[in-house]
Order: sequence, then C-alpha cells, then structure tokens
Amino acid sequence: MNTSTPSDLSVSVVGLGPMGSALARAFVAGGARTTVWNRTPQKAEPLAAAGARLAVDLEDAVRASDIVVTCLRDHESTRAALDAVPDEVFTGRTVVVLASGTPDDARRSAAWAAERGIAIVLGAIMVPTPVIGTPDALILYSGDRAPFDGARPVLEIAAPRAEHVGDDPGLAPLLDTAMLEVFFAGMTAFLHATALVTQRGLRATDFVPWAREMLAILPATFDGLAHDVDSGSYPGDQDNLAMERAALQHMVQSSRDAGLDSRLPELMFDLADRQVTAGHGADGWSRVIEGIRDAR
Amino acid sequence: MNTSTPSDLSVSVVGLGPMGSALARAFVAGGARTTVWNRTPQKAEPLAAAGARLAVDLEDAVRASDIVVTCLRDHESTRAALDAVPDEVFTGRTVVVLASGTPDDARRSAAWAAERGIAIVLGAIMVPTPVIGTPDALILYSGDRAPFDGARPVLEIAAPRAEHVGDDPGLAPLLDTAMLEVFFAGMTAFLHATALVTQRGLRATDFVPWAREMLAILPATFDGLAHDVDSGSYPGDQDNLAMERAALQHMVQSSRDAGLDSRLPELMFDLADRQVTAGHGADGWSRVIEGIRDAR
Repeated sequence: MNTSTPSDLSVSVVGLGPMGSALARAFVAGGARTTVWNRTPQKAEPLAAAGARLAVDLEDAVRASDIVVTCLRDHESTRAALDAVPDEVFTGRTVVVLASGTPDDARRSAAWAAERGIAIVLGAIMVPTPVIGTPDALILYSGDRAPFDGARPVLEIAAPRAEHVGDDPGLAPLLDTAMLEVFFAGMTAFLHATALVTQRGLRATDFVPWAREMLAILPATFDGLAHDVDSGSYPGDQDNLAMERAALQHMVQSSRDAGLDSRLPELMFDLADRQVTAGHGADGWSRVIEGIRDAR
Repeated sequence: MNTSTPSDLSVSVVGLGPMGSALARAFVAGGARTTVWNRTPQKAEPLAAAGARLAVDLEDAVRASDIVVTCLRDHESTRAALDAVPDEVFTGRTVVVLASGTPDDARRSAAWAAERGIAIVLGAIMVPTPVIGTPDALILYSGDRAPFDGARPVLEIAAPRAEHVGDDPGLAPLLDTAMLEVFFAGMTAFLHATALVTQRGLRATDFVPWAREMLAILPATFDGLAHDVDSGSYPGDQDNLAMERAALQHMVQSSRDAGLDSRLPELMFDLADRQVTAGHGADGWSRVIEGIRDAR
C-alpha cells in the first residue's frame, strides 16, 4: 500500500495544451513535485509561475519523475516523441498516455511500450478541463494493472476518480467512445427534436422539461436492455418492435413534413423495420442489437 | 370551475385495444359512469364485468356521455368510424381523439371536426398501459382550449397529468414525437455502445453505470443547447465542433473496426463535419441544429 502524502509525490507532464496544462496545474495545487515540458516552451511559463519546474528537454522531463503523464495530440505523435528518449531512461518509470484514439490505437501503443520495455498505462479523460482537480474528475485507465496501481496515488491528485477498467489496453478508449456515443446521441436527438418543435412556435427552452422526462426513464430502460442483451433473449413485454416501428414511422414522417434532415429517425426506423421484417415484431427494442452486430 | 366529484362524471370509451381497455378500467375504478364500445364486442366483456355499461352501437356510445374518448388505430380510422354517427348526436359533447399519428394527421382531424361542428381535443398518450390510472399517467393534449377544459375533470381520472400544450392541434403529437425521439435515440445509442463493449468481453450490465454517467450530464447539457438555439448563437466555450468531430471520428473508426453497423456514429460525424467544413469548427455542438434544419 502506498502511504505517501502528496508532498512526497512527483510527476512530469509532457504536452501543455489546455488539458495538459489543467492536469499540471492540478498536480501543483495538490502538492506534487511537478515537472513540465512542451515543445513550444511559452506554454510552460504560466505553470512555472504556479510552481512547476520546467524541464530543459523531453528526456529531462522523463528523468525528473517516476510517473510521466503525456498529453499529446494522439497516440502516434506520443510514440514519435518518446522514441527520441533512450530506452534506459524509462527504467523504473511509468508512462501514462492520455491521448484520445481508438481501442486499436491504444493497443498499438501498448505493443510499442512492451517492445521497448516501458511500463505503460492507457488513459481516457472523461471530463472537460474545468473539472480536472475536482472530486468529479474521472479518468478511465486500462492496460497492465501493476503500473496503474503504482501511478494511482499521483493520478488521483489531478483526477480523484481513477478507474482501472481492465487489462486490455483498448478498454479505456473503448468505454470512452461508448460513453460518448450515449452523450452525443442524446445531444443530437435533442437538437433534432428541438428543430421539430421550434418550427411550430415553441421555444427550445420550452422543450427541455419534456426532454428531461424522457431522460428520467432511460436509466431503468438501460437496465432492461442490458439484461436482455446479456441473456440473449428479447421479450416484448409491454412494448414491441411492431408498435415501436409505427411510432418511428410517424417520427420519420413528421420530420420529413417539417423539411428537416431525417436521417436519425430514418436510421432508427430502419433498425426496427429490419427486425420486424425478419419476423421479430413481437420482440422488444433490445433485439435491435442483433441488427447492429450484423452490419451489411 | 368544475366542482364535480368523480361520481358525477361520465365518459364513453370507443376502441378497446390494450390502451382503450386500460383507460376504461381506470375510469371505472375512478368512479366515473363509463360506457364502452368496441367493433368486436368480446373485448368489452371484461369491462362490463368491472362495471362499465356496454353500448349497443357507436351512436349509443356517443349519446351516453358528454365526453367521448376514442382510442382507435389511427386518425383516419377514427374519422371513418365517427362519420357513421349523425352530426347532431355530437351537439354538446366533446370527442377526445387518442390516436397516434403525425402533427398533420391531428390537424386533419381538427379540420374534419370543425367542418362537422364537433368539439374535439387531440391527445397523445405518453405512458404505457400499466401507468394509466396512476399519478404518473401523462397525456398531452392540444387543440381548442375550451373543450379541453370541459373534459379535463374526466380525463384526469385516468391520467392525472393532463397537459394542454397549445391550440395548434398538431402540438400534442409533435411533442410526443419529439420526446420519443430522445427516448429512442438513447436506447439506440445504448445498444450500439453495448455492441462495442460486449465485443471486448464486457457484459452489457457492466456498461450500464457508465452509460448512466452520461445520462446524468445531459439535463444540464440540454439547458445549454436550448439556450443557444433560442438565442441563435452557438459559442464553443469548453468543447467545440472541431474537437468533437475528432472524437466522433474515433467513434466511427472503433465501430467499423468492430464490424458493427456504423450509421449512428457516421451520421453524428457527418453533422459535425458539415459545420466544421463550413468554417464553424470553433462553435459548440448546438450549431448542428443549423444543418438539421437545412436538409439536403
């Protein structure tokens, strides 16, 4: 068990865009000895003023701390930057890569690190910069458990919700993408629905309470859908795909009548229609996952 | 003000599918004198046993009560059925049409009623049958306010949340469709995201808490989006379309790498991409509504 107090902890932050800077500021504020480095040194100056040490170069930044957090554009540029640092500099250190990317991107970085003998943790930051350093700051991590456990006391300074989601290095970006999909689909559906109602004189603000009513029933709905997916059976207890297909047909028609981009309701109609056509009209919405998995 | 107690109230329910039957049962249970009629009389028998009177024909059902609730397949079949009843039978009565359909369907029924001199209320039932008769039962109504106000004490017996949303007869089905879109998009995104994560060995149930985290931030997000839409400006304060486009590109790629139907992430990517390409990369997600309104 790590019994360090924050003041014993040290960390280097490589890459000082808005997110890297927010992390570095949170590390400094949390009492960690913080070293920072950025390709263009101007971005490091406000952090120096806040109490971080400026590394003279990337190798110096890696040498300065046991935990090296990289916050560069993507996985490829992260690997390219770190390739300039000799292997032996990484001995005893852990690199925490906080780059956005796909699960395959993260797996490539993990393979690259394994080849070089570098201990690596793959992270996906789930909150915007203002939340970094607050108790709500959530970062998902994946890859080997041991380096994560070693880095955790440091990582929790900037993002107290440090969640290791699995050994497969692709799991953190996978969950990141899956969670974002729910978020973006919610925003997109809200805007499409808002485009519908504002055409008939309602204000978008008037629609918010009604949209929130639907959000309120989704958590329990997710439980039901997940249960069906895990059990591989899709009973249509209350509603069923045939009824839902009819509601979606009204949705498509209303959207077309209003002259809107109707691809979102059309896609949902099509997902239901394919299952109904295949003879599953009495099943529940959860069966739609079969069509999603069976891309054509 | 109507000061009737439920026992003074009477209602006829026409159309005894699962929803019509649920409504009729709730009216009986709430103490209203309830008359029911269905084309095939067998469906009326359980309601007769519960205390409803069986009308001998549709005209008898209309004559029996001041408030006539129809729960038939759609607007067209509702009008066709009621066309068999002479105009004068409707004098002093209000017809409450609870048929699913588009806003234009509801407007056609309102125009038909106006031509025949029938007082009409257009309703959209927002809850499944088991919720009818409970305090959560929500039905949206639109059309002329006066007949709604007259019918309200009766309607509240079966669905206490009786909300008149506007004089435009199309508003109740419009809000219905808009609300359902948020609900279906949430379910669809959950299933697509679940298809992603279950491919890597997670269970759908494991994903539910993460999906719920995203739902939890949507209510405040809706407020922000609605504010932007109503003000017609789309500032990208924290996030912006250029960043979001990159996240959506990872989503599309992850979905394709997993061999899934990728139309949902592709659609969201395209909505962002069009705005970025048009020079709005620094704006927020709310700007996507401009593309939705400008269908090609």
